[in-house]
Amino acid sequence: MKSVKPLQKLIDSFQKLPGIGPRTAERLSYYLLHVPQSELDSFADALERVKRDTVLCEICKSVSETSPCAICSDRNRNQAQILVVEQPLDVVAFEKTGKYFGLYHVLHGSINPLDNIGPDEIFLDDLFSRIKNAPNELEVIVATNPTMEGEATSMYIAKEVKKIIAEKNGNGRKIVLSRLGVGVPTGAYLEFADENTLSQAFEGRKNI
Amino acid sequence: MKSVKPLQKLIDSFQKLPGIGPRTAERLSYYLLHVPQSELDSFADALERVKRDTVLCEICKSVSETSPCAICSDRNRNQAQILVVEQPLDVVAFEKTGKYFGLYHVLHGSINPLDNIGPDEIFLDDLFSRIKNAPNELEVIVATNPTMEGEATSMYIAKEVKKIIAEKNGNGRKIVLSRLGVGVPTGAYLEFADENTLSQAFEGRKNI
Repeated sequence: MKSVKPLQKLIDSFQKLPGIGPRTAERLSYYLLHVPQSELDSFADALERVKRDTVLCEICKSVSETSPCAICSDRNRNQAQILVVEQPLDVVAFEKTGKYFGLYHVLHGSINPLDNIGPDEIFLDDLFSRIKNAPNELEVIVATNPTMEGEATSMYIAKEVKKIIAEKNGNGRKIVLSRLGVGVPTGAYLEFADENTLSQAFEGRKNI
Repeated sequence: MKSVKPLQKLIDSFQKLPGIGPRTAERLSYYLLHVPQSELDSFADALERVKRDTVLCEICKSVSETSPCAICSDRNRNQAQILVVEQPLDVVAFEKTGKYFGLYHVLHGSINPLDNIGPDEIFLDDLFSRIKNAPNELEVIVATNPTMEGEATSMYIAKEVKKIIAEKNGNGRKIVLSRLGVGVPTGAYLEFADENTLSQAFEGRKNI
């Protein structure tokens, strides 16, 4: 026997989420039977609206309610720093450190030939335009994940930015390129790193 | 910085679920940004309807689309067996064994004085009425959890059912009361079993 249909539908939905297996999906669904209807409605509302009420910021490509996003619109942030991350959640993780006051650029992925994700599939061109149109001084901090794909993406960015630097320096501009420093354990994902590790990694960033 | 509002609402909802911490809630919410809107809508719909489209079966108190439920209405099931469980999910677990063909009774909890849950707070009276009005032969199998609360509930049921048996036998009816066998779970390693389980398994040893 399967669970009754309305429950099974909910179990199926939970089971599609990453890291949620059939037993957990069952447990969560049956748990929700004990929750007030108003709470279920507000959960459902949040689900329906999470994509409808958000956009990608036209500048940094982070998830936001407005475009440009709150960070890109904030003139108090250091306009001469761009921190490049793979996912919007990485922005949240960096903001939690309270140590970074520059801008971001969200790639929405990393170069991964096995999954057919090349440089054109992620927001790299947008990053390079931002760098080209940057003010006189700019620091680009590459904070892709310390994984194979993240490193490949970092190397690709380094190669392209060095081309821009070659041109730019001719124009008297100064662009510094760095990679997130030691402190981030290899093979892990940024979004799971604690604030302290992230701050140390930020402070220990190195030129590449 | 917190996440943007529509995401934060969803994160808050996920975080209310048992076993889902703040990091997992964040990860799931941001994951859902990559999911088609139709899937989000169907997830939301399932959430809104899970309580609205289900009722408690008037007989066994299990969660069902109809009352009486599919199991209670099935005349092919053994009407002379009632398996007493704490939660609707326990019914699902027993149905999955494919070895039980009787009826169920769902208590929706267990006696727990620390949480102010006495015999009147769970569906015990309904169980006792069912037993009183049962056909001539009846086996009541108590399958509450092997926890303090489950054992207390089991003892309470035993006491009350024995009173009914005393009356019923006078009327020439036969009621058998049993408790789910305790022992070492299949597929587990003995070294991880607690002393209590091991001694009960030893006491419950069977000839082979």
